[in-house]
Order: sequence, then structure tokens, then C-alpha cells
Amino acid sequence: MDFKKYLNDKKSLIDQELDLYLPMEDADPSIIHKAMHYSVFSGGKRIRPILTLATAELLGMDIKNALHTACGIELIHTFSLIHDDLPCMDDDDFRRGKPSCHKVYGEAIALLAGDALLVHAYKMILKNTEIKKIKKNTILNLFDEMTRCVDTENMLGGQVKDIIQEKMEDKKVFLCNLYKQKTSALICASIRAGAILAEAKKKEIKALTKYGECIGLAFQITDDILDMMQDQRNKNKITYPGEFGLKTAKIDSEELIKEAKGALKIFNDKADFLYEFADYIFLRQR
Amino acid sequence: MDFKKYLNDKKSLIDQELDLYLPMEDADPSIIHKAMHYSVFSGGKRIRPILTLATAELLGMDIKNALHTACGIELIHTFSLIHDDLPCMDDDDFRRGKPSCHKVYGEAIALLAGDALLVHAYKMILKNTEIKKIKKNTILNLFDEMTRCVDTENMLGGQVKDIIQEKMEDKKVFLCNLYKQKTSALICASIRAGAILAEAKKKEIKALTKYGECIGLAFQITDDILDMMQDQRNKNKITYPGEFGLKTAKIDSEELIKEAKGALKIFNDKADFLYEFADYIFLRQR
Repeated sequence: MDFKKYLNDKKSLIDQELDLYLPMEDADPSIIHKAMHYSVFSGGKRIRPILTLATAELLGMDIKNALHTACGIELIHTFSLIHDDLPCMDDDDFRRGKPSCHKVYGEAIALLAGDALLVHAYKMILKNTEIKKIKKNTILNLFDEMTRCVDTENMLGGQVKDIIQEKMEDKKVFLCNLYKQKTSALICASIRAGAILAEAKKKEIKALTKYGECIGLAFQITDDILDMMQDQRNKNKITYPGEFGLKTAKIDSEELIKEAKGALKIFNDKADFLYEFADYIFLRQR
Repeated sequence: MDFKKYLNDKKSLIDQELDLYLPMEDADPSIIHKAMHYSVFSGGKRIRPILTLATAELLGMDIKNALHTACGIELIHTFSLIHDDLPCMDDDDFRRGKPSCHKVYGEAIALLAGDALLVHAYKMILKNTEIKKIKKNTILNLFDEMTRCVDTENMLGGQVKDIIQEKMEDKKVFLCNLYKQKTSALICASIRAGAILAEAKKKEIKALTKYGECIGLAFQITDDILDMMQDQRNKNKITYPGEFGLKTAKIDSEELIKEAKGALKIFNDKADFLYEFADYIFLRQR
């Protein structure tokens, strides 16, 4: 398979869908809609929604029917980035080399645009009711997945820990939990959402969940490795390579990638893309 | 009917349910759960969820089956208050006479607690899947109602307009639209959610929607009247009594209350509570 072409093709589909279903930029009050578009179209690689599409496809589903859900996942991701960048949080002026949402539209509009993207993510899940092949029960299962991955046991809990960073009895345990909540939860949900849509069997969901957890962790460790190598890390925060060194971080993330690929065995050679994706996470550069 | 007793009884039920289903305060990471509890239990009168219960009851439903939904409504309300009070928004240090969430827990935790309450509101709607009498389709209709009332056409759009307050061609039109989005949308959704749960007929939903829109508008105008009389209004913001005078504001909100009651005619004498509630909105004091 042509991995890069697959990524590009799926990214185009997702970008089209996002452009089609976000509120129009000039709809009243236009400033919030402009802020939403700005952040959604600011260079995201669409990794999470591509995983949703790829998983649905692996399980025999027409990916057209997974596009609403994939976009919902990307909007949850964008919501979390906008709120993360706010001055009271990480106070980041830049995101992917461009001024962050609040630098362009002000803090209040950025806050509300984040809220609106979260709500719009759930509206995208609701749009699945228009697709006859998708059962009502499946849509309710998607809601379950996509509320759980954001709640305080997952993304929001991870963001809290990222800010307070206290009471670390064991730094490795702390860091792995933090990464699972902050990063792995949504990556895992992206994959599981594809599996839920395709009405996957229990053992398939179990294998894909394992895969998702491993690549999610590896993704965050690799991100921190890249930050460290490019001297962009926030020295106030503990990170995996910061605590255990670059070498250990690389070895451990390679181990996670191996574990992730191992979980795909039950799909035989059908999971080509997910195999290659695991390597891509480890080898990617910015 | 004993109106005050009805309010108190329903408030107790809602408080119990909220306490039961919010994440435990000491669950990790406890600071966000404490912030969520603090804001949810800081003296709210539970007006919106009471309207959900009363509407479900009016239409013959056992209110026990409407409690999850009622709590979801209250959590959406609390989410919006926390974000509204943040320094980048209205910058309010107090809410209902107590320090606002960010004054107690800091801005970052308040921001995330607001996010978490919004997500938890949708989790409460999902809990309806555990109630056999509620159809899956009904739950999806509730999701539609409770995402639409928050989105940029409603609450979030209202908050944007409340901040930017520009391009007012006609101040009355601007104010009525602002109040509809900022306040009326959620009050209306509280009532409509009760109707959706009880599988109301179209003409019942139409009548209750009219009622909700009118009391919602009257509620915000009365709120502004009270602010003005207690000299608590924000002089940077235009308000209905500020623009048209206390007398006109009172006459217009009385007219809205009349209109609201008129919409209840189709329920004959079954809508006692909602009749009295309309008067309560107009006559209430702080």
C-alpha cells in the first residue's frame, strides 16, 4: 500500500467534510465561527480521524459512513488544543507555527470557540442518524465513547494533572497515567469509534483498544522526544525523556510500537495501514 | 396546589440526583471534582430542571424517569455560569453571594470544570439508556435538543453577542435576540426536554415552546430589572430596562407572562404549576 497517499486521500475527505459541516464563517455572530474555522483549518494532520476511517475500513465498512464520526473526533481534538493554549492553561502563543486562537480572536472568543467545537463534535455524532445503515444503538455507543474519552477520567483529568503535577510517588506511573489520559484516550477513542461504527466483535475491539493504547502512549513519548531534540520543551513540566533520558524514551516507545503491532495479529494482513501507522508514529518528524 | 412546596420537593429530588451522579469529590484528580461540586452546589434554585420535571409530569410521565435529563439541564447551566464568570469573560468574583469558581480553584481548574460539567451533562442524557421505558430515539432527540440549545445559534452565540455588543441597528431587536439566545434557549430546552421525554404531541410541543420562549425572555428582563433596582448592573452593557426604562421593562415582561399563560390553554387546568411559575418569574425577588 502507498501509505503517504492513503494519509493524503483520507485527509482530503476529512477536510471537505469539516468544511461542509462547520457553521459558515459569516453566520451571525461571525467572530466565533471565524475562530472555529481558524483553529480547525490551521494545519492539523488529521491523524485521529484518519484512524477512525482506517479502522472502519479494516472492518469492512464504507468509509463514507464514518466521516461524520471522524470529524467529531477531530473537533474534540481542536477543542482541547484551543483550551490548552489559553493563558490560564499552557499560555502558548503559537500552535503549529501559527498564532494560537486566543492571540488572533482574544481569550473570550477562543474560550467560547472551544466550547462550541465540543458541542459541534456531538452534533456530528448526531448526524449519523441520517445514515440508514447506522443503528440508533450504535450512535448511543458512540456518544458513550466520545463523552468518556473527554471526561475527568480521561482528557480533562489529564489536563488537570498536566497543570498541577503534584504528589508523584512514582514518576513512571505518574507519567504513563498522564499520557494515557492526556493523549492516548482520544487516539484510542478514534480507533474504537471506527470499530463501534463497524459493529466490530468483542475480540476485535479488545485488540484495537490495545493497539490504540500503545500507539497513544508512544505518540506522546515521541512528541516529547521531538520537543526535547528541538529544544522546545517546557522545563517546568516533567516528561518521559526528561526524566529517563532520550535513549530510554526511544527504547520504550519502540517497545510500545512492537506491542501495538502484536495486537493486530488477529487481522492477518488486512491491517496493513495500522501496521505502517505504528511505525509512522515512531519515525515521524515535524 | 402548594407552589412553594412543589418547588422545594422537586429541588430536593434534583439535589439528591446530582449528588449521586456527579463524580465523587475525592476521585483523582480531586481538585476538578471539588470545583465541579462547589459550583453545582452553590445555591442554585434548580429552576430549569424543575421545569423539565414539571413538564414531564404535566404530560403524564413518572418524574423519576425525567431526573437524569433534568440534571443534565442543570449541569449545562452550571457550565455556562463558570465560563461566564471567568476573567476573560464577565470577570465576576462572586456568584450567588459566594466567590466564583475561579476565585476558589483558579482559572485553569474553573475552565476545565466547566468543560467537564458540559460533558457530564451529556453523560446524564446517556444514563437514560438504563431506563427501559425511554426509547433510543427519544434519547437521540434529547441529544439534539441539548446540543442545539448550547451551540452558536443559541447560548454560545448569545455569550459572544453579550461580549462584543456591536452593530446594533435596532436595540430592541438586538436585545430580544440576545436574551433569546443567552437565557431563553436553555429555559425553553428545559421545558422541551420534559416534553420530548414524555413523547408529547406536536401541538403540545408547539404550545410549550411558545410558553418557554416567553417566560425565558421575561426571566432575563426581570433579572435586569432586579440588577438595576439593586444597583448591580454592569454599566458597559446595554439591558432592556437600561434602554427603555424600568416602567416599559415591567410592562413588556408582564405582557410576555400573559402570552406564556395563553399558550397553556390547550392543557386546561392540568398546567397549574406552569401557570404559577410564570407569575413567579415576574414577581420573584432575590
